[in-house]
Amino acid sequence: MSKYYSNLDLCFSALGDPTRRMILQRLARGEATVSELAEPHEMALPSFMEHLKKLEAANLVKSRKEGRTRICQLAPDAFTPAKDWLNEQNEIWEGRLDRFDDYIKNLMQERNK
Amino acid sequence: MSKYYSNLDLCFSALGDPTRRMILQRLARGEATVSELAEPHEMALPSFMEHLKKLEAANLVKSRKEGRTRICQLAPDAFTPAKDWLNEQNEIWEGRLDRFDDYIKNLMQERNK
Repeated sequence: MSKYYSNLDLCFSALGDPTRRMILQRLARGEATVSELAEPHEMALPSFMEHLKKLEAANLVKSRKEGRTRICQLAPDAFTPAKDWLNEQNEIWEGRLDRFDDYIKNLMQERNK
Repeated sequence: MSKYYSNLDLCFSALGDPTRRMILQRLARGEATVSELAEPHEMALPSFMEHLKKLEAANLVKSRKEGRTRICQLAPDAFTPAKDWLNEQNEIWEGRLDRFDDYIKNLMQERNK
C-alpha cells in the first residue's frame, strides 16, 4: 500500500514538468537514445540526465546500455497507476452525481403523485 | 497551448503528494468544510491550507465562503486534463504496438508463402 502510494508520488511529480512530459511524448512514439532525446531541449546534459533519472525512479522510463549508447524506452504499463487512480476518483465522483440525479427524480415523482 | 501546459504542470505536481490526493479522494465523495478536510491530517492548519491552495491553483478544487465557514468541492471536470494527456500518450504507444504486430504478421505471411 505504502509502496503503491510512494510510486504515485514519484509518478505524478515526474509528470508535473514540461521537459519530462515531452520526453514521454517522444518515447510513446518509440525508443530513443539519450542524445536523440536531449536534442530538442536547450539544456546542459547533466540537467537533462536529472530529468531522465526522475522518470526512471517513477517507473515511467526504462533504459539499457548498448556499447557506449544508452537507449531509453517507455516502461511497460507506464501510465497505468496514474490512470487507475484518476479513473477511481472519477467513478466515485460520477457515482455520487448519479445518486443525486436519482434523488431528484424520486423527489419529482413524489411531488407529482 | 502554454496555458494548457502550465495547467498540466500545476495539476500533476498537485497530484504528486499523498495529503493532496487524500483531500481529493475525500472531495470525490462530496463537498466538505476546511475543518472536516483537515481533521484526519496531523498537520498545523497553515501547512494544510498550503495544500488546499495548490489544489485550487491547479483547478482541482473550488471553495466558497458561507458565513465563517469555507466549503470545498471538487472542481468540475477536475481530472479531465490529466486523464486526457495520459490517454493520448497511451493511444500513441498502443498504436505503435499494433503497427508492430501488423509488421510481424506480414513478415510471417511472407515467410509462409
